Amino acid sequence: MAEQTSKPETAKTIRETDDFALAESDRLIRGSRHAALAVLEPGTGHPTVSRTLVATDSGGRPIILVSALSSHTKALGADQRAGLLFGEPGKGDPLAHPRITLKCRAEHITFDSSERPALRRRFLARHPKSALYIDFPDFSFFRLVPVSASLNGGFGKAYELMEEDLDIASPAASELAEMEEGAIAHMNADHSDAIDLYAARFAGEKESGWRICGIDPAGFEILRGDQLRRIRFPEPLKKAAGLRKVLADLAKSARAND
Amino acid sequence: MAEQTSKPETAKTIRETDDFALAESDRLIRGSRHAALAVLEPGTGHPTVSRTLVATDSGGRPIILVSALSSHTKALGADQRAGLLFGEPGKGDPLAHPRITLKCRAEHITFDSSERPALRRRFLARHPKSALYIDFPDFSFFRLVPVSASLNGGFGKAYELMEEDLDIASPAASELAEMEEGAIAHMNADHSDAIDLYAARFAGEKESGWRICGIDPAGFEILRGDQLRRIRFPEPLKKAAGLRKVLADLAKSARAND
Repeated sequence: MAEQTSKPETAKTIRETDDFALAESDRLIRGSRHAALAVLEPGTGHPTVSRTLVATDSGGRPIILVSALSSHTKALGADQRAGLLFGEPGKGDPLAHPRITLKCRAEHITFDSSERPALRRRFLARHPKSALYIDFPDFSFFRLVPVSASLNGGFGKAYELMEEDLDIASPAASELAEMEEGAIAHMNADHSDAIDLYAARFAGEKESGWRICGIDPAGFEILRGDQLRRIRFPEPLKKAAGLRKVLADLAKSARAND
Repeated sequence: MAEQTSKPETAKTIRETDDFALAESDRLIRGSRHAALAVLEPGTGHPTVSRTLVATDSGGRPIILVSALSSHTKALGADQRAGLLFGEPGKGDPLAHPRITLKCRAEHITFDSSERPALRRRFLARHPKSALYIDFPDFSFFRLVPVSASLNGGFGKAYELMEEDLDIASPAASELAEMEEGAIAHMNADHSDAIDLYAARFAGEKESGWRICGIDPAGFEILRGDQLRRIRFPEPLKKAAGLRKVLADLAKSARAND
């Protein structure tokens, strides 16, 4: 009975950050297609919240695509502080479902920034339909760098996370970013069977037709139509060259459990 | 093709407020079990966003139940400005689903307030599981009075709503609030067939077992387990005594279309 019941947010104690908390944060932040974004209205400072599509950069930090005309853009231009809420309620008690609240610092990536092509590629891979407007010249990205977070991972599972818990600090990051596009193309072209195995074994998804849409040092995302799932590596890659092995090992492990 | 594609928030013109906008706002605000709540962190003013259960008062304004220990409570105690986002994405493109962003002014309803019993009854009717903690003495309500709203009712359907569009201004309000509990008990006990007809005809829900959980001058909510649906009256009641007739007329209309 108690397990099915909303436990108030606050009748909880904060747990020490453990691997469950890190894995849930990774899944919620990097496996969500959208989030609720809170910003401050310019001039008044009134908090407002709206729905936004999200992707991540090659370091796993949230990115959003905005129009220069949008209220988000004006708000984040005036005050870079933002809040993000990830995690969908689904069926049953809305408070029984894991979610994470992030405090973020927004960094504007302008249309002519050297960083834009990589963000564009990752955003487009996750949100193919954004092709219709992603190249409009008044569109640009914000990176929402997580500063701290409150994770509610289910009843009695409350955590406070710090910047270092949310950051994928890996020496492999930039080299992996360079090879990501080729690795994804190769996996999707030649190893679609392995990707469906990952989906089945690590995300509980039985349908076939999954594709990889993003890889970072801590894991990767798979996409099938409008469904996105995050799969975390057993540990973050220390070298980009280790990608092939970890993907092969995951496939082997998935086959063994098939 | 274009219909299935995310249209950026801002490549839109604002439509003149029409009955579609008023009906969608009513459905989203009064037919949602939860919302994303944005508040300002005390001290810093940083925007944060979290998930909260919502109900409405007898005037159809959102209410939330909070613990004195919660960050919401501290935040709203320090600054009464809040943002609310209603409307769930569901399947497909997250930006294709209607949602409404409200700017609100929070009013604290303390544990010993004369307003509390009515809010408690309505909150509990919608969220029966909250019985486990609703009477804890550190729990109280906030009414989040809508001040303005942005409705995105689907592609090309953007509206800006004012306080008067969001308020159910009815001379029947207080009298209806007095008789609400008895009317709901009567309907649920003696007219469960009619309620299932409302569900089928006006909410497209074919299962039986729906119950009314709240009535206000503009409409009512029906509940079945964790599902909540809003049904709007053809026009707001001007007299509380008109409730019986409008419910009978809706049942008649539903039967005619059965």
